[in-house]
Amino acid sequence: MNEKKIVGELAADFIEDGMVVGLGTGSTVYFTIMKLGALVEAGLSIQGIPTSVQTAELAKKLHIPLANMDEVKKIDIAIDGADEVDSHLNLIKGGGGALVREKIVAKAAEKFIVVADPSKMVKTLGAFPLPVEVVPFGAMQTENYIRELQGETKLRLTNGKPFQTDNGNFIIDCSFPSITKPQELECILNNIPGVVDNGLFVGMADRVITIDTGHKPVLLDRGKH
Amino acid sequence: MNEKKIVGELAADFIEDGMVVGLGTGSTVYFTIMKLGALVEAGLSIQGIPTSVQTAELAKKLHIPLANMDEVKKIDIAIDGADEVDSHLNLIKGGGGALVREKIVAKAAEKFIVVADPSKMVKTLGAFPLPVEVVPFGAMQTENYIRELQGETKLRLTNGKPFQTDNGNFIIDCSFPSITKPQELECILNNIPGVVDNGLFVGMADRVITIDTGHKPVLLDRGKH
Repeated sequence: MNEKKIVGELAADFIEDGMVVGLGTGSTVYFTIMKLGALVEAGLSIQGIPTSVQTAELAKKLHIPLANMDEVKKIDIAIDGADEVDSHLNLIKGGGGALVREKIVAKAAEKFIVVADPSKMVKTLGAFPLPVEVVPFGAMQTENYIRELQGETKLRLTNGKPFQTDNGNFIIDCSFPSITKPQELECILNNIPGVVDNGLFVGMADRVITIDTGHKPVLLDRGKH
Repeated sequence: MNEKKIVGELAADFIEDGMVVGLGTGSTVYFTIMKLGALVEAGLSIQGIPTSVQTAELAKKLHIPLANMDEVKKIDIAIDGADEVDSHLNLIKGGGGALVREKIVAKAAEKFIVVADPSKMVKTLGAFPLPVEVVPFGAMQTENYIRELQGETKLRLTNGKPFQTDNGNFIIDCSFPSITKPQELECILNNIPGVVDNGLFVGMADRVITIDTGHKPVLLDRGKH
């Protein structure tokens, strides 16, 4: 049984007619989007705000009407996956390389729902490398500054060349021993010249949807867990 | 007598043979670069790291050898202008739209020298609008968040379209009543999703070169003023 599919589809239950929905990027929210496509086919009326070119293409194929962020008055709900979720519902995101747009959409949404199969749930963030988006200019130097924070760093490559985000930037994947103060690290990283943003989402998730060992839904709400 | 020319040319005195020099962008450092061009013509051997396409073009015309940031081991000195310099040598930069690359080069340099005609010297920063570079995706929403910090904001336009930086981003010019805590504001702005960086350069300038009313050179060094 596909855990990502179960979790991803559960999130679609929270989408109501007329909503503007932030559509995340990745292998779990993929199933949310597929489900929304089926619901739209069956008559649900929504507008989607895609967080990546990849998600926009998938949504178009499914005939989910799309809009630009700046065309809508508000985003009702954003749904996205995560690479790690800690016990305070802080996240590491960006394994798929869409972290900047995902963070913009998540912040703009009235409610941010995260879909995460049980393998993503951790006590402390940091086993998954933290993606940091940097401008290409001086990227090696920017990587050096990050390394000085006691992280191991790796420029993300694709076919031997630097991976390019939808914003035209590079990703540096950073292994920190253990991220016990995510808010502090998020701030330090964002203040390094050349850093656009990083994959730490602190205090942003309103609800995390996962499942237990019996594949029963588990809803974790901020402030209630 | 052109104050920008006097100040700009003074900075060239600090450049020695064999140095790697960060070349800023703007109307004052223009005169530094012109002077360096003449010195190179006369035999000075330097490598320039340009902070903008505009500066790269000027330097090429003057036959100043250029390198990419990631090709050199270190930058000895970076020279750049500023839109405002306060009494602690904190700066507002980015009127020319090159703030991100300027900040990357300034941070990487062993010494960062600022050239500023007397009109740029202020007690407290903030009369000059603070430029903030943002990714185009969701730029209107990002502008809203900045406005919530009690700033008046304006998307920079050129020929009726959003001005594009060399990094492909937009600039939002922000008028804050008075910036009494530049370090705090720098940090808050950089943590807004969508913000790449902002024009506050706090604790970065090692030396500011300006002139007094009699057009005599004034050197302000960090920690000594």
